[in-house]
Amino acid sequence: KVLWTVLVTMLGYASSLPVGEDALCTAEELAKYRIIFTGKWSQTSFPKQYPLYRPPAQWSSLLGVTHSSDYSMWKKNEYASNGVRDFAEKGEAWALMKEIEEAGEKIQSVHGIFSAPAISSGTGHTSTELEVHPRHPLVSFVVRIVPSPDWFVGIDSLNLCEGDHWMDEVSVDLFPYDAGTDSGFTFSSPNFATIPQDIVTEITCSSPSHPANSFYYPKLKILPPIAQVTMVKLKKSQLGLSAPFINLPAKSNEIIDTVS
Amino acid sequence: KVLWTVLVTMLGYASSLPVGEDALCTAEELAKYRIIFTGKWSQTSFPKQYPLYRPPAQWSSLLGVTHSSDYSMWKKNEYASNGVRDFAEKGEAWALMKEIEEAGEKIQSVHGIFSAPAISSGTGHTSTELEVHPRHPLVSFVVRIVPSPDWFVGIDSLNLCEGDHWMDEVSVDLFPYDAGTDSGFTFSSPNFATIPQDIVTEITCSSPSHPANSFYYPKLKILPPIAQVTMVKLKKSQLGLSAPFINLPAKSNEIIDTVS
Repeated sequence: KVLWTVLVTMLGYASSLPVGEDALCTAEELAKYRIIFTGKWSQTSFPKQYPLYRPPAQWSSLLGVTHSSDYSMWKKNEYASNGVRDFAEKGEAWALMKEIEEAGEKIQSVHGIFSAPAISSGTGHTSTELEVHPRHPLVSFVVRIVPSPDWFVGIDSLNLCEGDHWMDEVSVDLFPYDAGTDSGFTFSSPNFATIPQDIVTEITCSSPSHPANSFYYPKLKILPPIAQVTMVKLKKSQLGLSAPFINLPAKSNEIIDTVS
Repeated sequence: KVLWTVLVTMLGYASSLPVGEDALCTAEELAKYRIIFTGKWSQTSFPKQYPLYRPPAQWSSLLGVTHSSDYSMWKKNEYASNGVRDFAEKGEAWALMKEIEEAGEKIQSVHGIFSAPAISSGTGHTSTELEVHPRHPLVSFVVRIVPSPDWFVGIDSLNLCEGDHWMDEVSVDLFPYDAGTDSGFTFSSPNFATIPQDIVTEITCSSPSHPANSFYYPKLKILPPIAQVTMVKLKKSQLGLSAPFINLPAKSNEIIDTVS
């Protein structure tokens, strides 16, 4: 039990260790992935206060980064950076892009940045490619929920490397987060800065525990996923000239309802 | 004079020739560029009906493609594709991405696709990287003007290759276009489909020639550029690991007024 506790403690601190964690990746030099983001924010799945006008429910551009454990784009229960705040509140990507650039220059912790176009409705797809490197095998990204005070979905430091090889395919369900910088309670709340800034928290069907909250569904145990992301490793033959795509779904607006 | 007319006629038809034009590029295998898009849509430069609320003036995601002359994303005085219509009207990129994918698969006319995040105000920057190939040296992209009926800015088939080398830097001023699919007259006009669809036209300070039009400035000779794009060739040392950026401007919202 003591050994187990030590191990868990070490793992808990791993992300602040200067070296070590990334060294575990001994995969081949580089890998490319297609990343497909699917919005599942339908009125059927999320009937409460579903935004229909000015603007209707939609998703911002996707902004992502491949990196080592020395960089963190955002993290649950920690404070959002100024860049993440601008992106979560307004969909403004520039400050976040500059932060990533600086992390790449100063501590060599970033391999590359990627983005995918916005989706003009709550359900639909967007897609792009990303590249990972054995010393930068982690993927993080954010997509703003529009409209919302400072709510977003994303991935924090997902490791695409498993020992000596790259994973073939990964799919992750996504749930809403609050960036902790705007105290609005509903999708269309007016701006109301949170001072002092709060930490990044997951929004669930019971937290914040207030009936006015847009995601408060007291009869549900958990929210249905509001989005999903899939990363598929591209084969060598799919790289380069004239083969930038694989298996893109046919329609953007095909609605995939997840309420049971 | 006859020879000149023949030459101009030949140039005019060049884009529909099945082979030839691209073969002129004998540059080294591949080149990478950083592309920086700058919005210059300020209230000072474009005071008329400048959108301040729900939504305020802003730019959609940028969606672009590198290709051969066998592919065309959009062209002045021709009809917009369904994908360009969806993008210009709603900022919905998926249909256009599928069109590009199909052109890549069927006629090998596409090298790659790229996108950059949206800009949440009328002035500001966004940026990404693109790759060109001797057989695919042309760059095209579109960015939707938000709000607007079906207005966009973009580049159609800009050739980055000059004989045996790639251009070091290219800057182009951008002016608004009407996709010809929605008959709205002002930034915030309600949807009103143009049936039958019209061709893509440039919007100038005198055309459409109607005082209600948002870009109608009868005292101006030409509109100031509403945006600008710069493509800078990345040096080998700037490629790859931890150097994805060069010289990004510091601030997104620095306002560059161009009214004289």
